[in-house]
Amino acid sequence: MSFYDHKKPNKFVDPLEDPLPGVGTYEDFNTIDWVREKTKDRDRHREITNKSKLSTVALLHSISDAFSGWLLMLLVGLMSGALAGGIDIAAHWLTDMKEGVCLIGFWFNHEHCCWTSNETTFKERDQCPQWQSWAELITGTSEGPFAYIMNYLMYIFWALLFAFLAVTLVRAFAPYACGSGIPEIKTILSGFIIRGYLGKWTLIIKTITLVLAVSSGLSLGKEGPLVHVACCCANILCHLFTKYRKNEAKRREVLSAAAAVGVSVAFGAPIGGVLFSLEEVSYYFPLKTLWRSFFAALVAAFTLRSINPFGNSRLVLFYVEFHAPWHMLELAPFILLGIFGGLWGALFIRANIAWCRRRKTTRLGHYPVMEVLVVTALTAVVAYPNSYTRMSGAELISELFNDCSLLDSSQLCGYKPVSVCNSLADRPAGEGLYTALWQLALALVFKIMVTVITFGMKVPSGLFIPSMAVGAIAGRLLGVGMEQLAYYHHDWFLFKGWCSPGADCITPGLYAMVGAAACLGGVTRMTVSLVVIMFELTGGLEYIVPLMAATMTSKWVADAFGREGIYEAHIRLNGYPFLEPKEEFEHSSLTVDVMRPRRSDPALAVLTQEGMTVEEVEALVESTRYSGFPVVVSQESQRLVGFVFRRDLLISIDNARKRQEGVVGASQVVFTEHAPAHAADAPPPLRLRGILDLSPFTVTDHTPMDITVDIFRKLGLRQCLVTHNGRLLGIITKKDILKHMAQIANRDPDSILFN
Amino acid sequence: MSFYDHKKPNKFVDPLEDPLPGVGTYEDFNTIDWVREKTKDRDRHREITNKSKLSTVALLHSISDAFSGWLLMLLVGLMSGALAGGIDIAAHWLTDMKEGVCLIGFWFNHEHCCWTSNETTFKERDQCPQWQSWAELITGTSEGPFAYIMNYLMYIFWALLFAFLAVTLVRAFAPYACGSGIPEIKTILSGFIIRGYLGKWTLIIKTITLVLAVSSGLSLGKEGPLVHVACCCANILCHLFTKYRKNEAKRREVLSAAAAVGVSVAFGAPIGGVLFSLEEVSYYFPLKTLWRSFFAALVAAFTLRSINPFGNSRLVLFYVEFHAPWHMLELAPFILLGIFGGLWGALFIRANIAWCRRRKTTRLGHYPVMEVLVVTALTAVVAYPNSYTRMSGAELISELFNDCSLLDSSQLCGYKPVSVCNSLADRPAGEGLYTALWQLALALVFKIMVTVITFGMKVPSGLFIPSMAVGAIAGRLLGVGMEQLAYYHHDWFLFKGWCSPGADCITPGLYAMVGAAACLGGVTRMTVSLVVIMFELTGGLEYIVPLMAATMTSKWVADAFGREGIYEAHIRLNGYPFLEPKEEFEHSSLTVDVMRPRRSDPALAVLTQEGMTVEEVEALVESTRYSGFPVVVSQESQRLVGFVFRRDLLISIDNARKRQEGVVGASQVVFTEHAPAHAADAPPPLRLRGILDLSPFTVTDHTPMDITVDIFRKLGLRQCLVTHNGRLLGIITKKDILKHMAQIANRDPDSILFN
Repeated sequence: MSFYDHKKPNKFVDPLEDPLPGVGTYEDFNTIDWVREKTKDRDRHREITNKSKLSTVALLHSISDAFSGWLLMLLVGLMSGALAGGIDIAAHWLTDMKEGVCLIGFWFNHEHCCWTSNETTFKERDQCPQWQSWAELITGTSEGPFAYIMNYLMYIFWALLFAFLAVTLVRAFAPYACGSGIPEIKTILSGFIIRGYLGKWTLIIKTITLVLAVSSGLSLGKEGPLVHVACCCANILCHLFTKYRKNEAKRREVLSAAAAVGVSVAFGAPIGGVLFSLEEVSYYFPLKTLWRSFFAALVAAFTLRSINPFGNSRLVLFYVEFHAPWHMLELAPFILLGIFGGLWGALFIRANIAWCRRRKTTRLGHYPVMEVLVVTALTAVVAYPNSYTRMSGAELISELFNDCSLLDSSQLCGYKPVSVCNSLADRPAGEGLYTALWQLALALVFKIMVTVITFGMKVPSGLFIPSMAVGAIAGRLLGVGMEQLAYYHHDWFLFKGWCSPGADCITPGLYAMVGAAACLGGVTRMTVSLVVIMFELTGGLEYIVPLMAATMTSKWVADAFGREGIYEAHIRLNGYPFLEPKEEFEHSSLTVDVMRPRRSDPALAVLTQEGMTVEEVEALVESTRYSGFPVVVSQESQRLVGFVFRRDLLISIDNARKRQEGVVGASQVVFTEHAPAHAADAPPPLRLRGILDLSPFTVTDHTPMDITVDIFRKLGLRQCLVTHNGRLLGIITKKDILKHMAQIANRDPDSILFN
Repeated sequence: MSFYDHKKPNKFVDPLEDPLPGVGTYEDFNTIDWVREKTKDRDRHREITNKSKLSTVALLHSISDAFSGWLLMLLVGLMSGALAGGIDIAAHWLTDMKEGVCLIGFWFNHEHCCWTSNETTFKERDQCPQWQSWAELITGTSEGPFAYIMNYLMYIFWALLFAFLAVTLVRAFAPYACGSGIPEIKTILSGFIIRGYLGKWTLIIKTITLVLAVSSGLSLGKEGPLVHVACCCANILCHLFTKYRKNEAKRREVLSAAAAVGVSVAFGAPIGGVLFSLEEVSYYFPLKTLWRSFFAALVAAFTLRSINPFGNSRLVLFYVEFHAPWHMLELAPFILLGIFGGLWGALFIRANIAWCRRRKTTRLGHYPVMEVLVVTALTAVVAYPNSYTRMSGAELISELFNDCSLLDSSQLCGYKPVSVCNSLADRPAGEGLYTALWQLALALVFKIMVTVITFGMKVPSGLFIPSMAVGAIAGRLLGVGMEQLAYYHHDWFLFKGWCSPGADCITPGLYAMVGAAACLGGVTRMTVSLVVIMFELTGGLEYIVPLMAATMTSKWVADAFGREGIYEAHIRLNGYPFLEPKEEFEHSSLTVDVMRPRRSDPALAVLTQEGMTVEEVEALVESTRYSGFPVVVSQESQRLVGFVFRRDLLISIDNARKRQEGVVGASQVVFTEHAPAHAADAPPPLRLRGILDLSPFTVTDHTPMDITVDIFRKLGLRQCLVTHNGRLLGIITKKDILKHMAQIANRDPDSILFN
């Protein structure tokens, strides 16, 4: 018994030697108590620091403990960077596999295959003889309608095969591997526990199926899932270090950094990644985490670069460099793009949530494999004839972002030749460009529709790339339009002065980039991090203002239709207990209106600090489903002493009954420091002060709810006790707050499922 | 009386119509209560939102209120950018004034003067006939020792004149304008009130004297003071908007953004500025502030760019572009520079604090003008003969960062000509370079010594530039050393493979930049923001790793000698009540050990919710100096009802005695909701529930201090009540915590001066 109350300063059991396994841990699908976790860590740290003065070994232990965070970050960066590189290479190879095969080795992708060929000239670079389309390989010819149909069918076949493999693997081995994972990671970072969500099986299956899903040609990206993959890496590596394995709060610091790593490798933007983690996913982000995230994001970016998956020493396919400046008047079309992005964002969220709700509530949800196959088939059938939908999302974006040089063979650069000295000057559109514009317009409509039904299927799927693709198409269309307008009307007063003939005044690629940022912003409601990611993609401070104008407009427009981004909407759809840190609590209720018990409810279930027997306590615990119980001085005074968790109480009683002599049902349960004198024939008391939290948080019944919500958010509480004039009145939990908020917003309060 | 308790939800008086001027405000040199301020703002917001449904005017009011934050940010950006541009231009002109004058107009600086000249050739660009040194102007010749001495004396004369003007203006009109201002701004942002510190006089005088101080040639920079200037702008512009004028918390959000603006214009680094504000100065930095800071920082940067103070469309003098990559082995010298930076940081902080303490405690502090003049004279006399100390700090840094091209005429590029095709390749050092190295070494010693005594004098002075200069010199020396080593020993195994003859393998300019970052990091302990600022200066992701390695090393080394950065050290020196948000509270004390009253003290001064007369309350308030009093149910039960602020209490009683009939000394003071029945002949009671905070924060006596400190930090509390088993036991204030922390660290607890 002695370990229970051996010293006062420690609220909880000794952090270094866990006497009772289970005390201080949490059940699955429950919320952690941040304060308790941080106290545990501080106690642990204090212990190590104190011991370090005693011996050299302890000193070394203390130093290694201090640096373990950095080491962990290094490992997370290395592992995530390597995995991201592997995913890039594999996805590239499998995507090309849909179209043909390399004769000198099936493991080469199209580009690699042609690199090894000696006879390639510039023109024929992607038509080297070593690479054969399926029609060529099977029938011997690549011309004619039969070959086309052959290739078409093979394309659909491979797409279906990849999609089938992906969805089957997910269902069989790791159901958590589907989706983008960001909504769940946001919830986990806010303190929720979903066991296995970041486990090794999820990592393995998500990595493999992500490659398959991307290669299947579905309208999805690998960026969101890469965040999940990085978080899995971090979670698994946490097991190497006691400090992080045993503490849920410390582990979440590492996971926040891992989210930054994920974006860093997804976009080659370490700073943007850190800001993404800060702005979008993290809940508790102390400065130390800022530094470490930055470090890990850098390591990951450099690991990825040394793998060099695209062979161009860039981290992403769509890195771009612009050279022409933009004009103030162009802000008008940029803001237009922002409005488009906002509308797209609002529309997408509504449509996607409606579709996902239908999947949850109707028979549709019972056939996930069928659903994936149907959508894949649909996508493949429609996408193949249009070269802009046939290519992968990242390639499409890359092509749309790129500026046309004179030598460019892309259809998008099908301008009529003009004889001006400046090769980059505005030129009139030619046949090729008009065809390209038509195809792009069709691609836009297709992408908008298919993305809505794709996101949320039971395969790994991110929506950064599809959203950006939608925006980039719209932007490029507008950009080319502006360019032609400026070319044919350069004496208009609007264009006069900056758009003289032969000048390079409109950059359609920039419009594509601004459009991409606007659409992504509309869907996710990112602002600063998005601008910084785009800034890192272009590397010029010059273009921050257009990006800023578009993303801000997009956010405002989208917010007018609903405050939630896609991730928050999915969190709500799934009923996770997530207390949004961004939104202000606007209603003027008081804590007394939200706490339990309500006026009509039975009184609060409390324990007294002495006088209750083990049996009585057990009966009380059995008769309720609360996660914890306040302990009071006496039923009459209702003066609060502390709080005890149900789980800790049950484990301790159970343990005492098994191991401790004399503890029976009639034993008194004592929470006071000194056990009261008891009759000689009575069974010895069960002293439980060790598991009693002597510093429970309290607010008064008159506290406005906005302050209470603030306390919950900032301190990361799970529950808080309510007092009136010093007497215990009730309890308020995170779930109560979320239910109250749902009620205010006219939503079903029972949609909040978990504690 | 009715306004006091007209509705329950409002804890405080009605936010829109301030009935009693003064209630809810703070005294000078006091700490604000963040929770109270935020509640006030939320009540105000709720009122406006509710009203907006009633009429169109109110709706417009509500919309303009929502956008006022953005408008304010726009104005802050514009004003700060314009001021920064003006300061740059004026300082440039006055700095050149020390050396000579432009004949075609004395308001031209050296460069402008020679621009207007037609006959300038490349060689003679800075020696055009229109620009005459003082010797030339007065004696007609610029050659010979006499002319040299003449120029020398004029240089000293102008330096002394500028310094004298600066220190006199500061002393006469705005004593708060001296120093860098960042320590005070940090304290203000944490919730402290220093009236006038961000006022219009401070702004005007700081702007003028900053120009004078920089021009006087003292070893100081304008970067820190620019943050102060931007914050002054923000504070003054806040007065245009009720929302920000009346709310201390909201105003601090704007000030946080202004700090970002200051750095943005100081370094031309908007993203770095935002991160600086987040990492280094801010206390409460919600996401909304992140977006707004970013917006304001961008606006300011673009305003500055359109002013174009340096005529090169760059925002700073020392913008640089590197082209050569770095090699992994170079990390060793970079880490060496990090160690140097850390040592310099630790040394500088100790020496500077010792010197400043001496200034505070000895007679030295009584002669600030004399001190400034002596240091200026010393600086001028020593600096003039050495061209690297004679030039301004920014110019020096610019020269050190720059890479040598073959045409470069700078002494630093005095390499021996060699005939290799690559013009940027490593070359052997020539005469010129050796001279330059000697001069640089002397400059390094001089800068190190003079900066210690300069920072903290009664003139505006920042230490970014001097620190960076020290680091840049050290870095350049090491870089040239490495370059020569590699040139002469390119067959060493270390250099083999990447440093073949004719290759461009070492970039001394990059070493200078890394050194600058390391030294600045050692002094300020910035990490991420510093790296991002440097990244924005170079515009290449490539060089982040060297910078990161150096700043991290520098931080670790400096932290080993003391955890405080220079700003925290100055905050402590001045005794401001600043609760460092970065450091963990390590000690294992309990709240009961820190709270008051201590065991030996008299009991806590409390008010009862009824039964005390106005006279008794006044007597209690008079006999103590506490800022507030807990209100309990009765002296016997000590059950807590609420908390009332001294200032509010005094103002209310005073007001009631003057205005309210029948309130006399014998009137009962009543804090309950319903006044108790009182005898007919008794005077009417004074009902003060309106000023009672019904939701005071409480912790239990057993709460570990680390949790209590966390609560204070995260919620921004000023005080917190301590209970034991539901009974009021004591009170703990921010000052108590700071005193306790000082005691633990073996410092004088009485060094904490303010509440």
